Amino acid sequence: MPDFIPYELIMKKRDGAEHTKDEIEYLIREYTKGNLPDYQMSAWLMAVYFRKMTSKERAYLTMAMAKSGDMIDLSFIKKKKVDKHSTGGVGDKVSIPLAPLVASYGVSVPMMSGRGLGHTGGTLDKLESIPGFRTNLSETEYKEIVSRIGVAIISQTERVAPADKKMYALRDVTATVDNLDLITASILSKKLAAGPDAIVLDVKTGSGAFMQRFEDSKALAIAMVDICKNAGKDVVALITDMDQPLGEKIGNALEIEESIEVLKDQGPPDVVEIVLELGGWMLVLGEKAGSLKEGREMIKKAIANSQGLKKFESMVKAQGGDPLVVRDLSILPKSSVSKEVLASKSGIIVKMDAREIGISALLLGAGRETKDSKLDLGAGIVLHKKVGDRLKKEESIATLYSANNEKLEKAKERFIKAIEIRDKPPQKRPLIFETIKM
Amino acid sequence: MPDFIPYELIMKKRDGAEHTKDEIEYLIREYTKGNLPDYQMSAWLMAVYFRKMTSKERAYLTMAMAKSGDMIDLSFIKKKKVDKHSTGGVGDKVSIPLAPLVASYGVSVPMMSGRGLGHTGGTLDKLESIPGFRTNLSETEYKEIVSRIGVAIISQTERVAPADKKMYALRDVTATVDNLDLITASILSKKLAAGPDAIVLDVKTGSGAFMQRFEDSKALAIAMVDICKNAGKDVVALITDMDQPLGEKIGNALEIEESIEVLKDQGPPDVVEIVLELGGWMLVLGEKAGSLKEGREMIKKAIANSQGLKKFESMVKAQGGDPLVVRDLSILPKSSVSKEVLASKSGIIVKMDAREIGISALLLGAGRETKDSKLDLGAGIVLHKKVGDRLKKEESIATLYSANNEKLEKAKERFIKAIEIRDKPPQKRPLIFETIKM
Repeated sequence: MPDFIPYELIMKKRDGAEHTKDEIEYLIREYTKGNLPDYQMSAWLMAVYFRKMTSKERAYLTMAMAKSGDMIDLSFIKKKKVDKHSTGGVGDKVSIPLAPLVASYGVSVPMMSGRGLGHTGGTLDKLESIPGFRTNLSETEYKEIVSRIGVAIISQTERVAPADKKMYALRDVTATVDNLDLITASILSKKLAAGPDAIVLDVKTGSGAFMQRFEDSKALAIAMVDICKNAGKDVVALITDMDQPLGEKIGNALEIEESIEVLKDQGPPDVVEIVLELGGWMLVLGEKAGSLKEGREMIKKAIANSQGLKKFESMVKAQGGDPLVVRDLSILPKSSVSKEVLASKSGIIVKMDAREIGISALLLGAGRETKDSKLDLGAGIVLHKKVGDRLKKEESIATLYSANNEKLEKAKERFIKAIEIRDKPPQKRPLIFETIKM
Repeated sequence: MPDFIPYELIMKKRDGAEHTKDEIEYLIREYTKGNLPDYQMSAWLMAVYFRKMTSKERAYLTMAMAKSGDMIDLSFIKKKKVDKHSTGGVGDKVSIPLAPLVASYGVSVPMMSGRGLGHTGGTLDKLESIPGFRTNLSETEYKEIVSRIGVAIISQTERVAPADKKMYALRDVTATVDNLDLITASILSKKLAAGPDAIVLDVKTGSGAFMQRFEDSKALAIAMVDICKNAGKDVVALITDMDQPLGEKIGNALEIEESIEVLKDQGPPDVVEIVLELGGWMLVLGEKAGSLKEGREMIKKAIANSQGLKKFESMVKAQGGDPLVVRDLSILPKSSVSKEVLASKSGIIVKMDAREIGISALLLGAGRETKDSKLDLGAGIVLHKKVGDRLKKEESIATLYSANNEKLEKAKERFIKAIEIRDKPPQKRPLIFETIKM
C-alpha cells in the first residue's frame, strides 16, 4: 500500500477534496499503530467535521476501522447471518426477545452489543442481571454458540475495531463527536467487524434518542444504510419512536422480565410491534420469509408457540445463565425499596419525556453516569400509564425501585418533571415513522 | 483567572462563537504550560481555520501569545521605541540601513529579527556575515546596547513568546499554517513581546512575498494594523513590491555590502526609496518628525551627512562585529567562484521572478532549504539589470557567486528560468502600493 504524508491528507480534507480508499486506509492503519499522532488525527477529524465526507469516503472509513482489528470470520456457518442494531434509547430491550425469535427459524444471529451510558440502557447490562449470564465470551466460545444455538449476544472483544476505540476517545475530548460521518463509521465499523451478511437498523427518534429531530434521525438512517450497501451488506433501517420510553419496564432486571413477557405473548403492544417489524425484516434478509408480512406472521407464530422462548432459554444456558429465569422471574435481582408516583391531577398524559425518564432510572441506580459507575441491576421503573392514557388525580403513574429512599426521592422528583398531564389528548405520534431500504 | 473546559472552548469555536479574552488566555496559558494537550490545540486550530477570528479575538490571541513568555521591559528607556517588521522577501536588507538611520535621530529601535528560510533571506544571517557580529545577545546586553546606542538587532531569546514556537510547530504538521488570524498573531506576538511603542510594517506583495496576490497582502496588512491598534500600539503598514528582488544584491555578505552602500548614499534607488518611506514613518511614530515628508527629508540628510553610517558602525561594534567593515568591504566573506548570466537575446526585461531568484540564491548556498541547513555567507547574486532595463544579446544580466561550479550551474539554470525578455516594456508596477494607517 502506498505511503502518504499526513500533512497533505489533512490539507486535502481541509480543502474539501475527496479522499481515496488508500488514503483513508493509510490514516486509520497508521493511527491504530500509533505512527500517526493524536494531534494530526484530531486536526483531520475537525476538518472532516467541517467538510463532511462523501458516500464513498464514509464507506472506506467504516471498512478501514472495521479492519483495524480482528474481523470475526463466521464464514464456516452456512446459514444467513443477520444482525440488528439500535441507536439506543430508554426501555429498548428489543434485541433480547428479537434475537432468539429470529434464530428460532434457522437464521443465524451473531450479536455484539453495548453497555448503557447516561440515560440509555445497554443490552449487555440487562442480560447480566440473569444470574450467571456471561457476555465476555472468547471468540472461540462465541463461534461455537452461534454455530450450535444460532444466536449469541456478547460484548465486543478488545480486538474488535481498535481504531474506533482510539478515535472515539479522541473525538470525545476534541469536540468532533457530533458529526454524521464519524458517528455512522463508528457504529458500523464494530457491526461489520462481527461479520454479518445483513443488518437491520433501528434508528430512534425523539427526546430519548441520540437524534431528537426526525430529519436528523432520517439523515443518520440514510447514511447508515448507504455505508452498509457500499460494504456489500443487505440492510433495512426503521425509524422508530423514542419520544417516550419503549414498553412499560425500564431497568436491567425489569427489562429481562419484560423481554420474557414478550416471548410468552404477554408483552406490551409497542415492544411487540417493534419486535414483529424488525423480526419480519430479519427473516426477509435471512431468506426465510418472502415478504415483510410473511416475516411478521412467522414471528407472531414463534411467540405463540413458544419456540422463541425455547431458543432464548438455550442461549441463556449456553452463555452460562440460569435457564430457570424463563419460568421463575423471582431469581432476578430486585431492589429493596419502591415508591409510587401519583398523578397530581386528572387528565390525559400528553408527554413522558424519554430522556428525563432515562435519567430518573439512572438516578435510581439502573444506569451509569460515567463509564466506571456501578449498576444496581434491580433498580428501575415500571410504568402503569403511557402517553395518551387517561388518569385520575392520585392514580399511580409508575412505581420506582431502588436500593434506598434517598435515591427514590431524587429520581421521583426528576420523573415528575418528565410527565405532562393535560385535558386534551396529545397529537398522535407514530411508533414506526419510516422504513428505509434504498 | 477562571478555569474553562477545553472541550467546550473547542466546541465554541467550532460552532462559530466569539471567544472572550479570558478564554483565549486560558487556552494559550495552559497550552504553553503543557496542561492542554497537542490534540486539543490542533482541533481548536483547525476550528479557527474554518471559523476565523474576530478583530478582538485576534488581538487577544496575539497578546496572550506575547505574554506566554518574557515580555522585554524597555520602559526604563524614555525615548519612543519604534520597531519595523517586514513579511520577508528576496534582497530585502532594508532593516540593516534603516534601523541606524532612524536611531541616529534619538528614536529607540529595539529590533528582534529572524533567520532566512527557503527563498527568503534573514536579517540575522546577513549581519552575522560581518566578522564577530553576535545576534544572540542576552536580555541584559540587549537592554544595555539599546539604551546606550539606541539600536540593536538581535535574535529572539528562547523565552520570547514560547506559545508561538509551540503552536507554530504544531500548525506546521496539522495543515493550519495558512490562516490569516494565526499568521498575524504569530508574527506580532514576537514583535509585541519585544516591547515597542510603535511599529512600522512592510507587507510585501508579489511572486517572492509570503502573499503573492495584492488583495491577500492587503488583508494581511489590515489584520496586522488592526491587532497593533487593539494592543494599543501606533502602527503604519506599507504594502510594497516583491515581484522582483529588492535592490541589486542578494546573499548575506552581499546584502551587507549594499546596506553600507545605502548608508554611503550609493544605494540602488528601490532600496533607498523603501528606506526613506519606512524611515520617514518611523520618525513620525517616534515623534521626531511632524509629517512623512519631513521624516523622509531627515532620513535623506542622515544618509548624506553619514550620521546613519556612524550609528551603524557603533551598533556593529557594540554587538561584537568588526567596525572596519564600514570602510573595507573586503573583510566580508566572498565566494571563490563566480559566473556571469548572459542575455539569450536582445530586448527589455519584463519579469525577474523574485521567488525563483531567491531559490537560485539558495542553490548557490545563500539560503536554507531546512532549518538545519548551513549557509555559505559569501554566496549570492549581483543583478546588473532589473525589470524594465534594456539589454543586448550576450550582455550580462547578473553575476552568481558560490563555493563551487556545480552549485553555480544548478543556480544559473534556475536563474535563467526566472527571467523574461521581450520586445515591449512591461506594465509599470509601483514600488509602494498602499499605506495603511486606520
